Amino acid sequence: MTDKIADLITEVRKKRPLVHHITNYVTVNDCANITICAGGSPVMTDAREDVEDMVRIADSLVLNIGTLNDRTVESMLIAGKTANDANVPVILDPVGVGATTYRTETVKRILSEIDISVIKGNSGEIGILAGTGGKVSGVDSVTDSDDPAYGVKKLARETGAVIGMTGVFDYISDGKDVFRCSNGHKYLGTVSGTGCMVSSVVGCYVGAHGANIRSVTAAITAVNVAGELAALGSNGPGSFKANLLDTIYHLDSDTIASRLECQRL
Amino acid sequence: MTDKIADLITEVRKKRPLVHHITNYVTVNDCANITICAGGSPVMTDAREDVEDMVRIADSLVLNIGTLNDRTVESMLIAGKTANDANVPVILDPVGVGATTYRTETVKRILSEIDISVIKGNSGEIGILAGTGGKVSGVDSVTDSDDPAYGVKKLARETGAVIGMTGVFDYISDGKDVFRCSNGHKYLGTVSGTGCMVSSVVGCYVGAHGANIRSVTAAITAVNVAGELAALGSNGPGSFKANLLDTIYHLDSDTIASRLECQRL
Amino acid sequence: MTDKIADLITEVRKKRPLVHHITNYVTVNDCANITICAGGSPVMTDAREDVEDMVRIADSLVLNIGTLNDRTVESMLIAGKTANDANVPVILDPVGVGATTYRTETVKRILSEIDISVIKGNSGEIGILAGTGGKVSGVDSVTDSDDPAYGVKKLARETGAVIGMTGVFDYISDGKDVFRCSNGHKYLGTVSGTGCMVSSVVGCYVGAHGANIRSVTAAITAVNVAGELAALGSNGPGSFKANLLDTIYHLDSDTIASRLECQRL
Repeated sequence: MTDKIADLITEVRKKRPLVHHITNYVTVNDCANITICAGGSPVMTDAREDVEDMVRIADSLVLNIGTLNDRTVESMLIAGKTANDANVPVILDPVGVGATTYRTETVKRILSEIDISVIKGNSGEIGILAGTGGKVSGVDSVTDSDDPAYGVKKLARETGAVIGMTGVFDYISDGKDVFRCSNGHKYLGTVSGTGCMVSSVVGCYVGAHGANIRSVTAAITAVNVAGELAALGSNGPGSFKANLLDTIYHLDSDTIASRLECQRL
Repeated sequence: MTDKIADLITEVRKKRPLVHHITNYVTVNDCANITICAGGSPVMTDAREDVEDMVRIADSLVLNIGTLNDRTVESMLIAGKTANDANVPVILDPVGVGATTYRTETVKRILSEIDISVIKGNSGEIGILAGTGGKVSGVDSVTDSDDPAYGVKKLARETGAVIGMTGVFDYISDGKDVFRCSNGHKYLGTVSGTGCMVSSVVGCYVGAHGANIRSVTAAITAVNVAGELAALGSNGPGSFKANLLDTIYHLDSDTIASRLECQRL
Repeated sequence: MTDKIADLITEVRKKRPLVHHITNYVTVNDCANITICAGGSPVMTDAREDVEDMVRIADSLVLNIGTLNDRTVESMLIAGKTANDANVPVILDPVGVGATTYRTETVKRILSEIDISVIKGNSGEIGILAGTGGKVSGVDSVTDSDDPAYGVKKLARETGAVIGMTGVFDYISDGKDVFRCSNGHKYLGTVSGTGCMVSSVVGCYVGAHGANIRSVTAAITAVNVAGELAALGSNGPGSFKANLLDTIYHLDSDTIASRLECQRL
């Protein structure tokens, strides 16, 4: 299992997928840069008039509700439906779902109107969506979902999406299998937007290799392995972010294979 | 005085206040990251539909008009009134007030409709609001307020807010006392958004310790002391920004106490 | 020719032009910071109610359509017309023109309603506008314009603007002369927004020295020379971006003169 996951990075760099993001204005620059460093080509556009044309030439669409508003939610729905029509996989990052009614209702609406290929969230967010517990304060997970392996599998079955739940342990499920991974570093929790950045990298891997448990696992672990290596030369969150980009830019399959800590449950 | 101010950083890290920002899209990522590094938890959301729920769970609200528009000004007013209702302190950063009519009118409207706990601005901005002189070009102060100690005290009395005015010297007043501090480094003036970042740190300190002259002074000087230390290993504005985040992340009360240069006037 | 171009940096630092940007939310922070490092003062504001006042005190206006929408396009038109009225030069960065109908139509509208002083784009974008070939995927150039020297000259004549086309070779033309420069480093292509950052620096140089072939050439090569030097101490795209800002902050005319590789064709 490990080798195939580690090898995907080569496929991503070869294909250089165009990842269309409709995302928040807080971490959008980091999302663009990690997309480049991970081997993709980012494009961010959220105007109703622009998204249909753009998503039709994209290899994947990332919808991130970090700073949603009525204009961008409408654009997400238009882009998502177009993506479904054009067979472009859609990744949803339900940032802060459960923290406010608007976020919860928007995620429900997206899930009911769009065929989502991947849902990537933190433990609180996925727990809330799966109905297995979990609590979100602002946009951070403060209470983990109970029985995380059950939660991701349940949500995958209910939505038909591959679920990627990040935390100290990452759980990924396609409704049949569940993978648990334990790579990562605490500095990833000290930089705003590392969760959003993971979703962008998922966009790269899904754009290159399709939406499946391997591509989502490979994307999450690529960021986490890069985080482990980047932390070595970092003095804190500021230098860590620059190092994370440097590291993922140079990351190769051998390095990933030598550090990957994932198992099928 | 020095010890108590230096000690507040411990209180902030312990409480980890949730700081709700409605802020500009230029420096928002740096605001999120410095909030984390200073010990808080940032959340940025500006949709009319989202802000009421979010501000009710927040420990403070930061309103920054750096890139205001009709949609976000409306959200600022809704969020501010909700914050007042829920006893959440509101920090206003009147970016570029005086540079355009729209900015000046918006600040007037915010001050008339919302009970503001802290106004944090540069010397030009505070001078304009206090009516003691000062000039702003774009969003930078170009002419300082006359008699700054008088200006901050006057504005504090007129508005009921604690005033934090940054510059080569920082002046902070609650309408009774005036503190003057002289920490800082010229590199802070070479990075876009260090003023906004100070307001975010004020949001952390006020969220943890309430809106008073000590919490505002402690927040301003935390950034300035971190700036002095960060400059030591920096080659210019780019490396300085990363170092500033690294430094404030590791900053403790002893380091602050040993460098703090503040006096009651 | 070389000396005069290298000397402009001193003029920019002396004048410290106020560069008003209406730009995308992806790279706006980097645009603000490189403006400061290059010697200018950035201001970003895009509200209909704010742009007229702001552009009247600015030394140049940069319009960048990276994340355009109906609200900001309207503001670009208002700001552009006000700039024309106030004799403030306008720089257009037609990000992603040709990739979607909305981008193409918006650029046409801007060019028909506003007197543009400089168009700065990548090879694909300028080729599309000049009708000399070129292809854009998302916001990246994937196929170069044919006969680039002819293309920039043609577009300069048709629009009356100075054209700056960036790529492995940069071509700059005022419709009479064509300059070709070859400074730069591959890392510039690995950071999101280096094209936008070049447009900001063009804003600084044009704000200080007027819109002419020398100021546009000097701006483009300042970033490219800084890129060459910044790459020396960089481990990848993350550290490169910080180094690029540090380097351009310290850049002087002697350093530029010693490395400049430009020729009149």
